[in-house]
Amino acid sequence: MTETRITLAHGNGGRLMRELIDDLFVRCLSSPGLDTHVDAARVNVPDEHGVLLVTTDGFTVQPLEYPGGNIGSLAVHGTVNDLAVAGATPAVLTVNVFIEEGLEVATLERLVTSMGTAAREAGVRIAAGDTKVVRRGEGGGVYFATTGIGARRAELDLGMHRIRPGDRLLVSGPVGDHGIAVMLAREQFGLKGEVASDQASVLPLTQALLDLDGLRFMRDPTRGGLATVACDIATVTRHGVRLRESAIPVRAEVSSVCEMLGYDPYYLACEGRVVAVVAEAAAADALSRWHRLPSGADARNIGFVTDAEARVILETTIGGERYLEELEDDPLPRIC
Amino acid sequence: MTETRITLAHGNGGRLMRELIDDLFVRCLSSPGLDTHVDAARVNVPDEHGVLLVTTDGFTVQPLEYPGGNIGSLAVHGTVNDLAVAGATPAVLTVNVFIEEGLEVATLERLVTSMGTAAREAGVRIAAGDTKVVRRGEGGGVYFATTGIGARRAELDLGMHRIRPGDRLLVSGPVGDHGIAVMLAREQFGLKGEVASDQASVLPLTQALLDLDGLRFMRDPTRGGLATVACDIATVTRHGVRLRESAIPVRAEVSSVCEMLGYDPYYLACEGRVVAVVAEAAAADALSRWHRLPSGADARNIGFVTDAEARVILETTIGGERYLEELEDDPLPRIC
Repeated sequence: MTETRITLAHGNGGRLMRELIDDLFVRCLSSPGLDTHVDAARVNVPDEHGVLLVTTDGFTVQPLEYPGGNIGSLAVHGTVNDLAVAGATPAVLTVNVFIEEGLEVATLERLVTSMGTAAREAGVRIAAGDTKVVRRGEGGGVYFATTGIGARRAELDLGMHRIRPGDRLLVSGPVGDHGIAVMLAREQFGLKGEVASDQASVLPLTQALLDLDGLRFMRDPTRGGLATVACDIATVTRHGVRLRESAIPVRAEVSSVCEMLGYDPYYLACEGRVVAVVAEAAAADALSRWHRLPSGADARNIGFVTDAEARVILETTIGGERYLEELEDDPLPRIC
Repeated sequence: MTETRITLAHGNGGRLMRELIDDLFVRCLSSPGLDTHVDAARVNVPDEHGVLLVTTDGFTVQPLEYPGGNIGSLAVHGTVNDLAVAGATPAVLTVNVFIEEGLEVATLERLVTSMGTAAREAGVRIAAGDTKVVRRGEGGGVYFATTGIGARRAELDLGMHRIRPGDRLLVSGPVGDHGIAVMLAREQFGLKGEVASDQASVLPLTQALLDLDGLRFMRDPTRGGLATVACDIATVTRHGVRLRESAIPVRAEVSSVCEMLGYDPYYLACEGRVVAVVAEAAAADALSRWHRLPSGADARNIGFVTDAEARVILETTIGGERYLEELEDDPLPRIC
């Protein structure tokens, strides 16, 4: 590509769009087997006898780049993780890009290169894509949408329907890093910090538990954070959830920023953590499996499911209790 | 939903987003089996022994609604058609929506309802979705992205690699209707017209040819139109393509608008047409199969593949010749 900025003509189906796709996307993604001349791409799912799963997610994070990641790698991790927590092994991804006229080509190259690296690391093939260019002022720089297809063993039964009173809630690591990292990267706050996003593929974490007898349910606490996962569990299962504040890992830097600005870290997005619900008898085994992984070193048992009222109660460090309510309005929009 | 306009809080993972999804998307799509409480949805592909195909497309058409369709139904037709021309039967769709703060809820309801209707008519299930809300001024009202998964018979071999000199090019109906319908719906041109978009599922057209001996390749001429499909064929196969102007169906209203504004109808988007390349001996059979369908009544044999230079030549009605070149800059951006 000779241009340094994206123009509307890069989205119109002609020569410039072909150059954008061949020179930038194909090269930067370096995804073997990505054929840009077909209308639909073949999907080879690793386990031919498994159940096929699909998931999709859109990404509008601002700013586009922040410590620990960017919107390109996030668009891979987000969708890989939705398949991972459903117990699936991701096979292929498709990518949609909505680019705002005027975006620097160098920026786009960095984002797409990160996307390709994240996909290779997660073992997922980018099989198809589409690019649209929208007028200056209409696109926030760039939005991505990714759709993932994966396979799960047919006999694996995971879901909220399997959750019972007495089950334990585990979290794989500190919560809120992604939310705070993105927030600090927004110059409007005038704050600097050392917090990097936790964004990563959670496949090592989920696959470590798949053959665990007593594994009920897994979810990655993204938009709305840990508290929203707990609220969803209470709402859907009609059981209560009790969490112990003293057990929930939160980095000191994250706590400080939250105290300063009045945020609750339990509602902040993570992009590389897993909340797992397991039978009481399986909790120790699950935790020790996670502790053996680099990404699970700080995993903790943070609470349990009760047969009380279907709400989430936090037992505070000073011995009190407070409800964690369903999120009404996000303190940090555009976090993913 | 009690609100009449979309707010940023509709995209933040909390209560308002849940209401938007349950009250609007689930109701308007009325897609059986759409479970909004799972991270990944199960895919049941009709032909378990077929080859699985995936395709994805983004939609940014302006205006959002125009005679013959809107961005919601277009997002279904576009992706269904990419699977259809690849010889597949679509099974499931996923949907991403990027909504601009301030969009009228009533508008969104019309778009999503059209989307649900189009999906049911094409026999495709909407299995998963995601919604993001972006700040006022950053989203053009609404963008959609859809990803489709379908299955194709394993023994079906379709693609440009099968095209040979002597093969015939067929088009299933008049070209340019979608482009002109969308253009006339833009008030900036100050023109009024009777042209409706041709947007539709092309499944009846493609499935009518799937068992035809001599079927080589099919494509729906969307962005860049018929001329771009012909140029792609020339570029990829390294064969020449000759088209006869007198044979290419163009509606009188479309021709008039094109003459007035200096557009070439062969470069305008269709959203319900198919270009098929078939062996010479199969052309009559293919045409008669299309003529038996309502959507193929105006199908024509419009040209053939040559072993001359790899360019596209149009034989004009007055007996001359001109090259149809690869599109440099689209005269009508944001058409899909």
